[in-house]
Formats: sequence, C-alpha cells, structure tokens
Amino acid sequence: MSITICDVGPRDGLQNEDVHLSPAIRAELIRRLVAAGLKRIETVSFVNPKRVPQMAGAEEVVAALEPSTDVVYAGLVLNGQGYDRLVASGLREAHFAFACTEEFNRRNQNASVDESASFAEHIIKRAHADGIRATVTLAVAFGCPFEGLVESTRVLALAERMTAGGADEIGFADTVGVGVPRQATELVSKAMSFGVPVGVHLHNTRNTGLANARASLDAGATILDASVGGTGGCPFAPRATGNIATEDLVYLLHHEGIDTGIDLDALIEVAQWLSEQLGEELAGGVYRAGNWPN
Amino acid sequence: MSITICDVGPRDGLQNEDVHLSPAIRAELIRRLVAAGLKRIETVSFVNPKRVPQMAGAEEVVAALEPSTDVVYAGLVLNGQGYDRLVASGLREAHFAFACTEEFNRRNQNASVDESASFAEHIIKRAHADGIRATVTLAVAFGCPFEGLVESTRVLALAERMTAGGADEIGFADTVGVGVPRQATELVSKAMSFGVPVGVHLHNTRNTGLANARASLDAGATILDASVGGTGGCPFAPRATGNIATEDLVYLLHHEGIDTGIDLDALIEVAQWLSEQLGEELAGGVYRAGNWPN
Repeated sequence: MSITICDVGPRDGLQNEDVHLSPAIRAELIRRLVAAGLKRIETVSFVNPKRVPQMAGAEEVVAALEPSTDVVYAGLVLNGQGYDRLVASGLREAHFAFACTEEFNRRNQNASVDESASFAEHIIKRAHADGIRATVTLAVAFGCPFEGLVESTRVLALAERMTAGGADEIGFADTVGVGVPRQATELVSKAMSFGVPVGVHLHNTRNTGLANARASLDAGATILDASVGGTGGCPFAPRATGNIATEDLVYLLHHEGIDTGIDLDALIEVAQWLSEQLGEELAGGVYRAGNWPN
Repeated sequence: MSITICDVGPRDGLQNEDVHLSPAIRAELIRRLVAAGLKRIETVSFVNPKRVPQMAGAEEVVAALEPSTDVVYAGLVLNGQGYDRLVASGLREAHFAFACTEEFNRRNQNASVDESASFAEHIIKRAHADGIRATVTLAVAFGCPFEGLVESTRVLALAERMTAGGADEIGFADTVGVGVPRQATELVSKAMSFGVPVGVHLHNTRNTGLANARASLDAGATILDASVGGTGGCPFAPRATGNIATEDLVYLLHHEGIDTGIDLDALIEVAQWLSEQLGEELAGGVYRAGNWPN
C-alpha cells in the first residue's frame, strides 16, 4: 500500500495560529519537512492577506522553496485570482476546496455550493490546460457547525460531480473535527468507485482523528493530510486543537507496518522547532511524549 | 452490543496529577459521574499513601459513596494489604493489575512477573471466597518503556493463565500509550476464546487512543476504561497526556451508533468541573471543543 502524506501545516496549521510567521520562517518550515522525508506539502494559500494575514507573502514562500523532483509543492486556491497567483508562482499542483453545506460555503466562499462546484469545474479545466494537477477537497464533509449532520449522499454526489469534471483527486475534509470512523468508511469506500485517488483531511478536535485515519486507510484512501505538531485550531471552537499531527500519524502508520519514507525522529525535531517558533506547546502527542521504542 | 465504560479518572487519572484532591472532592467527582450515567467507576487505589499521596484516604472516599444497585464501585489492589482494605471498605469488585514485563513489574510491584501472576491467582481465590468479583489487568501489554516491544504471545499466555485462575474479566492496558490498532485487534480477538469478558485500558499519550478503542470494539472487547477529562499523565514522559477521555469515547460511540446510557452533555459538565478543581486545562477534546451537533 502506497500512502501519500500531505503536510498542510504551513497552510491549514499556520493560518489558524495567533502568531504570524514570516514568509522566510514558513519556507524554512517547508525545507525542514522535506528534509524529514515529506513528499507532498501544501505550502501556502493564495488568499487575500487582508482576510488571512497568516498567509501574507505566499509568493515569497514559494520563491524560497528549494526545487525538488520528488517533492510536490501544492497551493490552496479558493477563487480565480488565487489560481492566477498560483500559476504565476510556478507551483504545479492546485488544491481547490469548497464546502458541502450552503451556510458554511456562503460564509467562507460567499457563493452557493452549486456556484462553487461550477467554479471548481472551471478551475480544473484551466489547470489541465496549463499542465497543472488539480485536486478538490470537500469541506465539512463529516458535519457542519451551522447545519449539523451532513448526509453522505450529498457529499458523495459532489465528489462524483467533481470527478466527472476532471478532478485528479478527491478529498473529504472533517473541517471542524466532528467525524467518526463509520463516516470515513462510508465516504471513502463509496468514492473509490469514482476512479480517482481518494484522500481525507482530518482534524483531531474531538480526539477522533487517528481513528478516522485508520478507517479511511482500511476503506482505500491513499492520501492523508496532517500538520506537523498538530498546529492549527478550529475557528468555531476557541479552545479546540487542529489537524491531526503528522508525526502522530506517521507513528501509527509505521507501527501498523505501513512505510511512509518519513524519518520520524527528524519529523519530531521539526515539531519541536515549530513549537519554539510559535512560542507554544502544540497538540501533537508523539513530539511531547517522545518516539518509542527508543 | 452492550459496552461497559469504566471511568478510572478517580484512580488512574488523579493518581498522576500534581494537584492532590481531598477524599471529599474525589467522592463528589464519583457522585457526578454516576449522575451522568456511568455504571462502573474505579473509585480508589488501596495503596500506601506514602507512595501515592493522591490516593490517601481511600476508605473515606468509599464511605462517602452513595449506595446504588446499578453502579459498580471498584477499587484497585496491588497486594494482600490492599485487598484486605478493599474488603473492609465494603467494595465488591477488586481490580488487580500487574505488568507483562519483568523490569516494569519489578519497579512497580517489586516482584517478578511469575510471582505477581501467582499472587493474582491467590487474590482471585480469596475474592471469590469473599463473594467479590475479581478482574485482572495486564499492564504494558502494548509495549514497555524499559523493555520496548512486548510479544503478544507473552501477553496472551498471561491472560490465559489468569482466566484459568478464575479471573472474572481480563484487561489489556496500554499503560504508557504506545499501542496501535493492529495490536488491539490481535490481543482482543485472540483473548475472546478464553471465555471471559475482555476489556482494554488505553492511554492517549500518542493520540492513538480512540483508534485503539475502535479496533478493540471491532475485535470483541466489551469493557473500556477511560477517565473523565482525560486526566492523568505518564510517569515516564513529563509532557504526556493520560487516559483516553471518557467524554471523547462516549462521543465516538454515540456517533458510531453504540448506546452507552451516558448523558454526554452532563459528562462534559463533569469534565469542566474537574478542570476547575485541578486548576488546569485537561486533555479531553470534546469538553473543550463542545458537543456536536448542538
């Protein structure tokens, strides 16, 4: 089984932190992740820095990356301007995301779900014409803070539509960390028939993250998002933690007998370094408790 | 599927906290857990208070408990003196624990594994003669901080011996939180053939706790230990967190469609109350992020 771990810490992790790191430090974080063996990194979000100041200087971050033939540097785009910036920056993988519920999508994208889905189809076409890989992540696929339970049929219909529209990969995001394994099993196993790789983007808000990751892998998912140190949070729950921690996920995978190509001890050092940069203890368990056996 | 959740917070959670709560407050914690719907609680450890000052006044705690016909109040015993104290206190369920590795057991019980196993057989006989239910938990069953990997054959041989010796229940403890689902699956599924209920005692030290709980349930485990708020820690890793949080486990079970009879909102309030008593933020996710959907 070949699993791709995408570290989204430089994007999803840092954009939810109170401390804003400079583009140079963010590029250094990415460099350290690559040195630890990460093969895919969501490096930046091409959003308006007035809306998300943590992501200011996205182009500076990208310009500072060391070219690599075996690492995929991706960027998140949410609209046409963002896509234009990604192309101009030289990145070759665009991650587009929108929400499965009207209220969440209206607040985040100022668009209806159908409008965002149509826009995703448009972006995928442009990307392919530009020789750029385009993935689509469906946010609040496990539940919404505004609309509550989200029917899996609704999520899967969007996933199927995105695949028909040419998405190179489909991701299901538990954006606010409410999901349980049963949902991961259902979403992933049903999406496997759509014919593109399936990924999950899990938050550990309610400590169910790794249980959901394990269920997703069993169901056939091959891409797992995670953030080094478990940085980030949940904008709807001030005391909540963020993404599943990359080093916790790698610990679990290695002990389950699944190789990742990642040097766990080196990754733990990256989490420690990031904790110092942010001046706070992070949510990751393995970097605090230590690797095992020693 | 009928699942028993045993809240070990008053014992395993509190015995690893720096703040020492009075017997009156510990009894109040137990009263609140019962009010939230918990049906089994490990209330105290009958240890020498000079060794574990957090557990001082065990008899006072037990004396303050409200009698209940549908709640099991249990106590941990580690030696004959502890067992005598349990009998004198009036408790009717003894939880005996020892470690699967020589080094851990020597440091904790000052005995070889075989000596502790023989002693367990002796305690089980005495308990049954006294009309007391006796469970045995095998510590460091998923891995040892001193000896590293622990072969499942070694753990299962001890479990089989304890069952043959009359144990009413077998528990596998991930005492230092190093386990992964593969191990839970193997230990629990193989122990099912021994003919007594099988439980797991999981720590969330490396954030694998609920993944291991889910795997244990799938394999047939029917007893799950947890501590409200996720109190406790790991004596071998100063920054590590403790048991899986009861309210996180209940959240997962309810969303997986498994009823527990526990009022999750009430349980979250117990975690908040305990956090105030201890004067610190606890590790539990659900009590910090909130229940969902609201």
